[in-house]
Amino acid sequence: MFHTFFALKNFLRVFFMIKMKDIKFMKIAIELSKRGYGTVNPNPLVGAVIVKNGEIIGEGYHECYGGHHAETNAINNSNKSVKGATIYVTMEPCNHYGKTPPCTEMLIKEQFSRIVIGMEDPNTIVNGKGTEKLRQAGILVETGIMEDEIKSINEVYIKYITTKQPFCTMKTAMTLDGKISTCTGNSKWISNEKSRKWMHELRHCYSGIMVGVNTIIKDDPELTDRSNYEIKKHPVRIVVDSNGRTPLKAKILNTSYAKTIIAITKNADSKFIKSVNKKGAKVIICPEKNKKVDLSYLIHELGKQSIDSILLEGGSTLNFSAIKEGIVDKVFSFIAPKLIGGDTSKTPVGGSGFDSIKNAISLIIKNIKRFDQDILVEAYIVKK
Amino acid sequence: MFHTFFALKNFLRVFFMIKMKDIKFMKIAIELSKRGYGTVNPNPLVGAVIVKNGEIIGEGYHECYGGHHAETNAINNSNKSVKGATIYVTMEPCNHYGKTPPCTEMLIKEQFSRIVIGMEDPNTIVNGKGTEKLRQAGILVETGIMEDEIKSINEVYIKYITTKQPFCTMKTAMTLDGKISTCTGNSKWISNEKSRKWMHELRHCYSGIMVGVNTIIKDDPELTDRSNYEIKKHPVRIVVDSNGRTPLKAKILNTSYAKTIIAITKNADSKFIKSVNKKGAKVIICPEKNKKVDLSYLIHELGKQSIDSILLEGGSTLNFSAIKEGIVDKVFSFIAPKLIGGDTSKTPVGGSGFDSIKNAISLIIKNIKRFDQDILVEAYIVKK
Repeated sequence: MFHTFFALKNFLRVFFMIKMKDIKFMKIAIELSKRGYGTVNPNPLVGAVIVKNGEIIGEGYHECYGGHHAETNAINNSNKSVKGATIYVTMEPCNHYGKTPPCTEMLIKEQFSRIVIGMEDPNTIVNGKGTEKLRQAGILVETGIMEDEIKSINEVYIKYITTKQPFCTMKTAMTLDGKISTCTGNSKWISNEKSRKWMHELRHCYSGIMVGVNTIIKDDPELTDRSNYEIKKHPVRIVVDSNGRTPLKAKILNTSYAKTIIAITKNADSKFIKSVNKKGAKVIICPEKNKKVDLSYLIHELGKQSIDSILLEGGSTLNFSAIKEGIVDKVFSFIAPKLIGGDTSKTPVGGSGFDSIKNAISLIIKNIKRFDQDILVEAYIVKK
Repeated sequence: MFHTFFALKNFLRVFFMIKMKDIKFMKIAIELSKRGYGTVNPNPLVGAVIVKNGEIIGEGYHECYGGHHAETNAINNSNKSVKGATIYVTMEPCNHYGKTPPCTEMLIKEQFSRIVIGMEDPNTIVNGKGTEKLRQAGILVETGIMEDEIKSINEVYIKYITTKQPFCTMKTAMTLDGKISTCTGNSKWISNEKSRKWMHELRHCYSGIMVGVNTIIKDDPELTDRSNYEIKKHPVRIVVDSNGRTPLKAKILNTSYAKTIIAITKNADSKFIKSVNKKGAKVIICPEKNKKVDLSYLIHELGKQSIDSILLEGGSTLNFSAIKEGIVDKVFSFIAPKLIGGDTSKTPVGGSGFDSIKNAISLIIKNIKRFDQDILVEAYIVKK
C-alpha cells in the first residue's frame, strides 16, 4: 500500500517536472513565433526550440511568407547534432508539399526522439495528419502544450484557413462619454501618444486596413504602418466607397509603397475606375446592399486575394454596417479620460442602430490594458 | 564606527516594526470607519482602535450623525482600562463643543499614552488644534498614518467642510460604443445585474440623488436606496425641472419615506409649486442660466441644507450642463460589453458639447473594476 503510494507520488513528481520544462521551452517558442507578426500572413505564426540534455541547441521561427518553416530554421540554427533531441514547435508540423517540403519528413530524417506540439494545424490538409505521420515513425509526440495561448496568437490564421475569410478587428478610440470627435468634427487627438503609437504596432499585424470614404475625404490619412518594426510590406489600404468619391489627390492614391483597393458599387462612375487604376490602385466592384457596398461580398473577395486580416478603422457609419453584416470578429476599443459632450458628436458606432438592447451585439471582454491614462478594451464579438 | 552602524540598524529595525504595527491597526480603524457610509453625513467617516500591550482592547466608529464620535465608542467598548493605551483614530480628534463634548479632553482624561492619527481634520475649527492640545497634555501624538487612503474615503467630507458645497459624482452606464439607450430610447438594461446592484450600494453612500425631469417623465423611477445595507435615511431625491413639468403622479412625489426637492426657475407655474408642496416635497426656485436652472446656485442651496454629497444620475442633457458648470467632482462610468449603434442613440453626455478636444473636460482615472463582463471606471475631473 505504502509502496504504491510512494511510487505514485514519485511518478507524479517526475511527470510535473517534465510538464514544467515543456511549458518553459514552449513559452520560448511562442515568443519566437511572435517575431513573424506582419510578415508571415496568410501563414500562421510558428516558433520552434530544439532541446538536448536540458539545453537549448537551436531556435527558429517562421520569418516570412514563402520562407522556411520554423522547424527548418531551428535545425539550421542548431549548434549541435539534433539527433535524439526534443523539438518544441508551437504548431503541428506540416505533412504536405507547399512552398517548402513537408516538415514531418525532415523531422523523421533528423531522428528527433520527442516532438512537443502546441496546437494542431486547423488547415484540413494537415489537421492531425502531421502528428500521425510522426507517431507512425516511432517518435514520441505530445500535443496541446499551451494550446490556448497559441490559438489566441493565431486567431487570424485559424479563421482564414478554415473560412477563407479575413479576420476583422474593429479599432475605435472614444472619450469616456463615448465620442470619437466633437460636435464640430474635431478629433485630434482623442487618444494619447502612447495609444496612437500602439495603434501603429497594431497595423503592423494586419494584412489590410479598411476605412470608409468619408475618412479619406475628411482626414486624408496615409494609412500606413508607422510602427518601429521592420516593415517588409505595408497593409493593403481598403476604402469602402460605394459611389466612387475618393479624391484623386488623396494620399492613399499617391503613395506607391502601399497597395490600395477601392471597393465600389455599380453606381460609381466608369471614369473614376479608370482614374483610380491609372494611379495603380485596384477596384473591386461589389453588389449593393441598402444602396451601399455589400460588405459580406467584399470581405469574401478580399479573402480570395490572400488578405487574411483586416483592421477596420472606420467612421461610425461603416462600423455599424460592418457589425450589422457580421464581418467583425474582434474589437479594440480605446477609451480616453475626457468628456466632450454634444448630442451631435460622432460615436464609434452610428448608422441606424439596433432598436432594442436585446438585439444589440454582445461582446466577451478578453483583456483590459492601460496606456498611461488611456484604457484599451480587447473584446470578441459573440456571433449570433 | 561599527558600533554606530549597528545602533542605527537596530533603531531602524525597531522603527519599522512599530510602523508596521501602526499600519496594521490603522487598517482596522479604516475598515471600522467605513461602516458609517450613508449614516454619518455630513460628518466624516471615522474609526478608532484601542491597543494595549499589542492587543486590541476596544473598537468603535462614528455610527450616525449626532451620535458618539469614534473615540468615545471605542472607549465605551473597551474590555480593559484604557489608561496607558494607544488609540488609533482615522481622523484628528475634535477640540470643540459640537453635538458632543471635545474628544481631546476625554482622551487626556482617560490618560492615553500615545495617539496615532490618520489625517488632520480639514474643518477649520479643528484643523491641527486637536493634535496640538493633545501634545500639550504630554501625550505622544503621531499623524499621517495611511493618510491618502483615509482622505480618499473622506473625499465627500473634505470638500463639504472646506467649501460648503456638496461633492458631486456623476454616474453613467453606457455600451462599449458609448450609448446609454438605443435609437428608440430602450435602455433596459445596459448594465448587468451585478453592476446595478452595486449602483444601489453607491446610492447608499450619498445624501442626494439628482436627475433631470426627463428621466422622471420617461422612467418614473423611485430613486431610493435599495442596497442591502441597513437604511437609516434614504438620499434626498433632487429633480432639476426648470419649467415645472414633474408629473404629480410620479413615484418620487408619492413615496413618503424619501424626501424630494424639485429645483425650478421662475418659469414654472405657481400652481405647480403648491401641488408639489402639498405632496410633501420641497421646491427650490433658482435663477436661470441659459433658460435652465442655474446649477451652481442649486448646488450651493443644497449645501446649505446639509446635503454634502450628490449622486448625479442625469440623462445626457443634465450631465452636460453639470460638467460645463463645473459642479461634478467625480465620475463612475459603467461600460457594458455591447454594441448598439445609432446616430441618434443617446450618449452619457449630450447637450451642445465642447467644440474642440482641447476644451474637453479631462479626467484622472483612479480605478478600473470589473462586475463580471461590465467595466467600472472611477475617475476624477481635473478642475480648470
